[in-house]
Parts: sequence; C-alpha cells; structure tokens
Amino acid sequence: MNRRPSAARRASATISVPMSEAFDTVVRVRYSETDKMGIVYYANYYIYFEIGRVEYMRQQGVDYRSMEIEDDSFIVVVESHCRYLRPARYDDPLRIRTRVKSAKRRVITFGYEIFQDEKDELLATGETTHVICDSRGRPKALPEKYRRYFKLETVESRP
Amino acid sequence: MNRRPSAARRASATISVPMSEAFDTVVRVRYSETDKMGIVYYANYYIYFEIGRVEYMRQQGVDYRSMEIEDDSFIVVVESHCRYLRPARYDDPLRIRTRVKSAKRRVITFGYEIFQDEKDELLATGETTHVICDSRGRPKALPEKYRRYFKLETVESRP
Amino acid sequence: MNRRPSAARRASATISVPMSEAFDTVVRVRYSETDKMGIVYYANYYIYFEIGRVEYMRQQGVDYRSMEIEDDSFIVVVESHCRYLRPARYDDPLRIRTRVKSAKRRVITFGYEIFQDEKDELLATGETTHVICDSRGRPKALPEKYRRYFKLETVESRP
Amino acid sequence: MNRRPSAARRASATISVPMSEAFDTVVRVRYSETDKMGIVYYANYYIYFEIGRVEYMRQQGVDYRSMEIEDDSFIVVVESHCRYLRPARYDDPLRIRTRVKSAKRRVITFGYEIFQDEKDELLATGETTHVICDSRGRPKALPEKYRRYFKLETVESRP
Repeated sequence: MNRRPSAARRASATISVPMSEAFDTVVRVRYSETDKMGIVYYANYYIYFEIGRVEYMRQQGVDYRSMEIEDDSFIVVVESHCRYLRPARYDDPLRIRTRVKSAKRRVITFGYEIFQDEKDELLATGETTHVICDSRGRPKALPEKYRRYFKLETVESRP
Repeated sequence: MNRRPSAARRASATISVPMSEAFDTVVRVRYSETDKMGIVYYANYYIYFEIGRVEYMRQQGVDYRSMEIEDDSFIVVVESHCRYLRPARYDDPLRIRTRVKSAKRRVITFGYEIFQDEKDELLATGETTHVICDSRGRPKALPEKYRRYFKLETVESRP
Repeated sequence: MNRRPSAARRASATISVPMSEAFDTVVRVRYSETDKMGIVYYANYYIYFEIGRVEYMRQQGVDYRSMEIEDDSFIVVVESHCRYLRPARYDDPLRIRTRVKSAKRRVITFGYEIFQDEKDELLATGETTHVICDSRGRPKALPEKYRRYFKLETVESRP
Repeated sequence: MNRRPSAARRASATISVPMSEAFDTVVRVRYSETDKMGIVYYANYYIYFEIGRVEYMRQQGVDYRSMEIEDDSFIVVVESHCRYLRPARYDDPLRIRTRVKSAKRRVITFGYEIFQDEKDELLATGETTHVICDSRGRPKALPEKYRRYFKLETVESRP
C-alpha cells in the first residue's frame, strides 16, 4: 500500500484487471482546511479527490473546463466514499493518486489514494462515481472524442 | 422515502431493527456552498451531515463541545459515504434527517437523509462511521454517561 | 457597542444620518468553520456577512435568488473588510447584525457587526461594497422595483 | 501594476520606502472555490492571501508550523481587506504576490496582489494585519529569531 509512485505505476501495468494507470498530484494542506481537532476536516478529502480527478484528466489531455463549455458535458457526481486511515495535518504535502476504476458510456468511477508524501504513508482511500450530463442536468453519453482518454473500449470489452 | 417527518418518526418506532429515532434539522443553502454548476458542491453534503450529527446529539442531551473539552472524547470519522439523487440549489431549505444506525462501545454509525424541505423531495442519503478517541487520537470507549444517548444497550443486545 | 438588539434598533431610528435599520440573524459556528487554532478561520467571517446580507434582503422583501434569475441583477462585491476583535469558537451562537450603510443607483455598502449572542459580546465588524451587474458582469442600475428596499431615495437626497 | 514578476522585484528593490521584496506563489482555482455566479467566491481570496503569506514565510526560512508548535507564536489576524478588480474563474492559474508592508515588534501587515498568471492581469489586491499571540491568545513580541525574516530593524528605523 505504501509503495512508491514509480513502483505503483509498474504494478498497475501488470495487473490483469484493465484498470487505468495512476496519476499523482501533490498539494499542501492549507490552514483553512484544518479544524479545531488540528487535522484536516473530513469533507475536505473530497476536495482533494476533485483536484486529483481534474489533474488526472488534464494529464490525459482532457481540459475539463473546455469539456463543460465547448461540449456541454459535465461530470456530475452521483456517489462518493472515503475511508480515513491516518489524519492529515497542516502543511503536510499530500500526494493524491488517481485512477479510473471503471468507465462505461455514461458512468465513470474514479479511485483515489492520499499519501503523506514525505513519509510515504497512506492516509485515506476513496472513490467517486459520476454520470455525464448536459448543462441542464440531463444524462448523456460521453462525447466520442473523450472516450479514449477514459479507456472506455478496454473496460467495455471485459467479459 | 419522501415521508413527512412525523410519519417517519412513527415509522421508525414500529420497525423491528432497533434503530434510533430520526431527528430533523433545517439549514438553508449558502451562496458559498454552490459551485459554478449552480448547485451545491458535492463535498458540502458532508458539512450538512456534520450539522445533523451535532444537532442530533444536542437534542439527545449531548453537548458535543463539552464532550471534547470535559471528557476528552472526540468522535473521529473513519468512513463517509454519500449518494446524490437530485441537486440542492442556492437558498434551498434543506431538512437533514439524522439517526444512529448502529452503536457499539467504540464505533458509532450515523445515517442521513437530506430533503428539499419545501418540496419534501429526497436529495441525498449517506452515512458516516466514527470511533471514539482521546485528544491524542487514541481509541477509547465512549464514556459511560453518554452511552444511553446512543442507545448502546439496545443495539448491543441484538442477537 | 454591546447593546442589545432592541436598543440597537431604537438607537438607529434616532440618529440623524439616514442609515438603514439593522437586522439580526443568528447562526451557529460549524466544526468545518474552525481551524487548528480552535477558532473560526478568518475568511469565514465573510460567509457570515453574506448570510446577514441575504437575510437582511429577505426581511426587506427581496428574494435575492429571484433578483438574479428574474431580473438578471447580481450584487457583485468590489470590496470587503473585516476587523477581528475577539475569536468566535465552535458551536458559538453568532448574531450577525446587518445594515445598509449607503446606497446609490449602482453601488451599495453593507455594514456588519458579529456578536457572540449568549454573551452579547462584539467579536467582529466589517463592511462590503457591491455594484449591480447583469449575468455577464456588466454594471447596471438597480432595477426600480428594488430601490425602495435599499432606501435609495433617502440616501441620495442627502446634501 | 501588471508588471512581470521579475520587473516587480527589481522595482521593489529601488523604491525608497523600506518595503520587503515580493514573493510569488501560483495556485490553480479549484471547482470548490467557485460559486453559482461561475467565479471565485469572494471569501476565498482570503484563503489565497493565507497561502501567499505562508509561502512567503517559508521562502524567508520561516516554517510557520514550527513557529506555532516550538515557539508558541501564532500570527493572529486582526484586520483583513480585499479589493476585487476582475473575477477569477475556474482553473485559472493565480499568481499571489505577497510582501511585508510593515512590521513592528507585535504587529505585521502583509500586502497582496493576485494576478491571472497567464494573462498577467491584476484581479485583486488586499492586505491583512496580524498580531503575535501565544496559544492562549495573549499578545507577545515576535521571538528574536524570527525578526530578521520580517525585516523588523529596517522598518522600525524609519523616522
């Protein structure tokens, strides 16, 4: 679980389930994100997940801002989940590891792991499930041009 | 699912699983809680859950602030989950229905339903699981005096 | 400064400067609003100001949500300011006292005082200045029908 | 005002008022920071100011986390102010330019400018004033070892 990023990428390339490769983003815990317990407030992990998700897409070549504006396609969350293993603290560098766990024409699930980057310690894991919608909230299929970024073919061809 | 509060309370009194009665709190969606999609940002539902949880405890006679300060007992979240059914919008009155789904000496699970209060429409459901810890983060049993509030006896006596 | 609400309202009715009457809203400090110093994070006072502002307008008969949707009029902030006198703490009931300090055809300034409601202790003061814009961000005059709510006549007739 | 960072640094070195050099930090606007108007919510600029402040201190050699823990010295805000010139939008890279505007034994004022980094466009300016306190909120002088970082000598020697 506490594998180094490079090892994780190697590992994910060899497993048989066609899961996407992971992408890492590092953020630093802000004062505003802590609470009076001195640790990161539990809802804020979902903000980290969103950052991981957006940066994952950017690295795949998807500019989410354009996807909303030019293609009228919004990635709307329908479910979210987080397990908290160890607290994140003020000023901690957090490594958000994001991958696509499954992708269908209308539904995408992202998986996340959050590490204290200096200590390489796993702090939390989670996942979010999304449907593609237009700006009026009606479900639609992910536009053709984005599909390869989410490895739809691979996943849908699973028996 | 869209039952009125009173009906819900009656209903919860007749079901066989010894689940606690529900308690309702109403909050209004703040501008700061919306995002550019025009709806409540997904992480903020967990803030509503926390409000429901605290008000549930207050109504049971538990002042959570004192519980932290005087009894060195913190209700630390270890897992959280939310399903989003319909979007909440700016200025919507939200009814947060909270109940204790299960309670053991060291672990408590709360369940939540969020309704658009005027339309009596279910917008989201979720749950959070917590362990009792001292201020240094070490697990401990819930102090004796708080146990009855969480109906520990009932739940623990289940076969 | 620590006058009771009713006294404050009487006082504001007798002063010669045509400032609007104050309106009070009470909110309770949320766990998510505290930081690791154990007190409310400084940016969150501006969220309280916004709540005071919206509730002030609602009490005057202005539904800000409709003002945006039906009249394409947004109250866009151009300046904000806060002085912090004493810290607000978790679970504190805060009384947000809001008034219109000045109002012109295109510019409105709100003033705020935040009290710990139980102790009647002044914690912070501040103000925000706004221009009226349409949804594309272009300045416009406040629609006729809203003017009386902001006492424009009175203020503009000042020598 | 829209000078490039390097030019700004040169400029600040030649002005006669002994103001500290500016330090730039870049952050990207998060989805959670936008509101239904599609732009960054006004309170969040103060979060950017805090990031600028902490990174400014880090670059000067001050680890604010240690300053709190090891030296029992908290930089408590007593006043904050922001002027909003142009809206910041989702995914915009923001360059936060921070400098110490004045520093005395117990009071420090930081100044900020926020630019859209790609367009080199000034979006907002602001300042925050702080007093040094211990963990119980009592004012104290800034510990000797931190003074040079805030250029106290220079500023205090002003006539």
